[in-house]
Amino acid sequence: MMSNTEILKKEIIETFGTPCPVIDLDIVEKNIARSQSLCEREGKANRPHIKTHKSPRLAKMQMMAGAIGVTCQKLGEAEVMFEAGIKDILIATNILGAAKSGRLAALQKKVALKVSADNKVSLESYAYAANYAGRAIDVLIECDTGQKRSGVETVEEAIELAKVIKDEPMLNFTGLLFYPTKRSWADTQSFCSSLIPALKEIELTPQIISTGGTPNLANIGKLRESTEHRAGTCIFNDRMMIDDGFASLEDCALKIYSSVVSRAGINRGILDAGSKTLTSDTGNLVGFGLIMEHPDAEIVKLAEEHGFLNLESCQKKPDVGTVVRVIPNHACVCVNMMNEIVAVRDHKIVEVIKVEARGLLV
Amino acid sequence: MMSNTEILKKEIIETFGTPCPVIDLDIVEKNIARSQSLCEREGKANRPHIKTHKSPRLAKMQMMAGAIGVTCQKLGEAEVMFEAGIKDILIATNILGAAKSGRLAALQKKVALKVSADNKVSLESYAYAANYAGRAIDVLIECDTGQKRSGVETVEEAIELAKVIKDEPMLNFTGLLFYPTKRSWADTQSFCSSLIPALKEIELTPQIISTGGTPNLANIGKLRESTEHRAGTCIFNDRMMIDDGFASLEDCALKIYSSVVSRAGINRGILDAGSKTLTSDTGNLVGFGLIMEHPDAEIVKLAEEHGFLNLESCQKKPDVGTVVRVIPNHACVCVNMMNEIVAVRDHKIVEVIKVEARGLLV
Repeated sequence: MMSNTEILKKEIIETFGTPCPVIDLDIVEKNIARSQSLCEREGKANRPHIKTHKSPRLAKMQMMAGAIGVTCQKLGEAEVMFEAGIKDILIATNILGAAKSGRLAALQKKVALKVSADNKVSLESYAYAANYAGRAIDVLIECDTGQKRSGVETVEEAIELAKVIKDEPMLNFTGLLFYPTKRSWADTQSFCSSLIPALKEIELTPQIISTGGTPNLANIGKLRESTEHRAGTCIFNDRMMIDDGFASLEDCALKIYSSVVSRAGINRGILDAGSKTLTSDTGNLVGFGLIMEHPDAEIVKLAEEHGFLNLESCQKKPDVGTVVRVIPNHACVCVNMMNEIVAVRDHKIVEVIKVEARGLLV
Repeated sequence: MMSNTEILKKEIIETFGTPCPVIDLDIVEKNIARSQSLCEREGKANRPHIKTHKSPRLAKMQMMAGAIGVTCQKLGEAEVMFEAGIKDILIATNILGAAKSGRLAALQKKVALKVSADNKVSLESYAYAANYAGRAIDVLIECDTGQKRSGVETVEEAIELAKVIKDEPMLNFTGLLFYPTKRSWADTQSFCSSLIPALKEIELTPQIISTGGTPNLANIGKLRESTEHRAGTCIFNDRMMIDDGFASLEDCALKIYSSVVSRAGINRGILDAGSKTLTSDTGNLVGFGLIMEHPDAEIVKLAEEHGFLNLESCQKKPDVGTVVRVIPNHACVCVNMMNEIVAVRDHKIVEVIKVEARGLLV
């Protein structure tokens, strides 16, 4: 007799073929509830980052579970979320290039956005867009405390930007945006402890202090003044989150169903999931995904539609035609590869979910 | 006065925003003509691989220039090409997982496809699809001569598969599929020199002997019996092709227009093109792309929507707001990230081209 897992595999391959991204909605719901409660436990609001799923359907599940709004990384994502009826949207990057296209103004006209900036040029373009939209725009100042990505590095620079915002009638000073590294929460606290009084001196008070990252859900209590958190990956989890200790195998909602399509050598094989499915993003792990049925098989290399398997340490090597479930290293970039993902519940296909906000130019 | 390049940048950013993939149609046409003539010079037919552009619009330009048909890597790509009116389609992978979904049969019913296989399970599924379609399917046997990807490694294995094809009325033995490495053309020749007489003994003659790869356009004369070549990247070229010596900067048709959106440190900056634009595929090069305006700036790391710039060796460091053109390491995976690419000619935007065959499940 076939197991439920084998029956589902057969259904997936006969309905869609492989490679096929599949999410388990029961796990998704559990994951959503968990991140919501991790935020609530510390008295912080939850503003999930939708860059992981890019799907209004899943964003709405997060809102229903108690999220106050969503975080987007691109203007196109914000447009899709607004069209789907979500009104409280934070864009957590300098969207300078997209802002210049006039699309920021067009969206700001329809809904009061929250944007972020770490420099004056971004502020200028936000003011321009707000003017054009006829509605002042809410701005968070992005501060860096260790990522060395974007974000001002000093309190002085933050104050300088805050003054520009204060002096520009079409910009509302709204708050601060942080993305602490695991080790920089103390630095983030001291940054805040210096910045908040300095802001007070120029009569500004942050209404929002935002932190980010799924692994950081364990740390959000460490910044006293923070008001909300933006985490993305936790809705699906992935091999990086297992490696981090945030998630277990059972918490991984996303699996890439893939077929072994070649076994040309005794110790090697080919999956039909390559870099256009799993992506070349290793997330600093060894190999490009975890094969649930063969954890001792290694995905050592990717071509565009080929996943190269090293089966040397593999006790029972999979035959050609075998369907396996791969937990990707990084769920967010993986979901971004497909127009649709298949949703299952209790080993049955229940839905096809559109990844609507993917593939957009800006 | 602004240069034509600067005027185009302004137009791109004001019309679309950044990041924005842009192709120059004049260069595309020159590249198409070049690959066509490289094939013709050696008396081989040209069957371009459309995985690079995934666009019927561009495939038709290749057909108009003399291509005999197209190569696809996925069933979904073949479906899109057929719908666009292209009839001579080779799928150059074991499409086992996709075949099981019934979609291979549905397409084979509409058009006589050429498929490839390196194992009996694939052959079974092709025969099943052909039966269902009511039309025998043309099969090429994939042979490996050094890639260690898919493809049988020995003449004996090839003959074994050929016999299966011969005995199955719904499979037509059509030919051989090779993807020689740069160093394995002599091996490929000797493989062919042994295999062809062995096939003759069982009364089979390959009508098609196919080789692949853009850098290999320089080598196609080295396999006497080959009849056609499948190259993808050469339509756009990229940093890998420059590194290989196949292309120069002037041959690169695809540029990712991107804005410097942050300069939070003296020697670092952030582009708005990250792993969801440039992809994490380095193509074994250092850095994630070549910035035309700042070749001494290095894209050292990617987050999903952030490209991390190391500007240490950069003489004139770009300010926030600067728009740059990035030549990606690997064009094929990069184009695959976007629903559309912008086409220009003589520094003017002329068209938006849909990347129709991307993001499909199988």
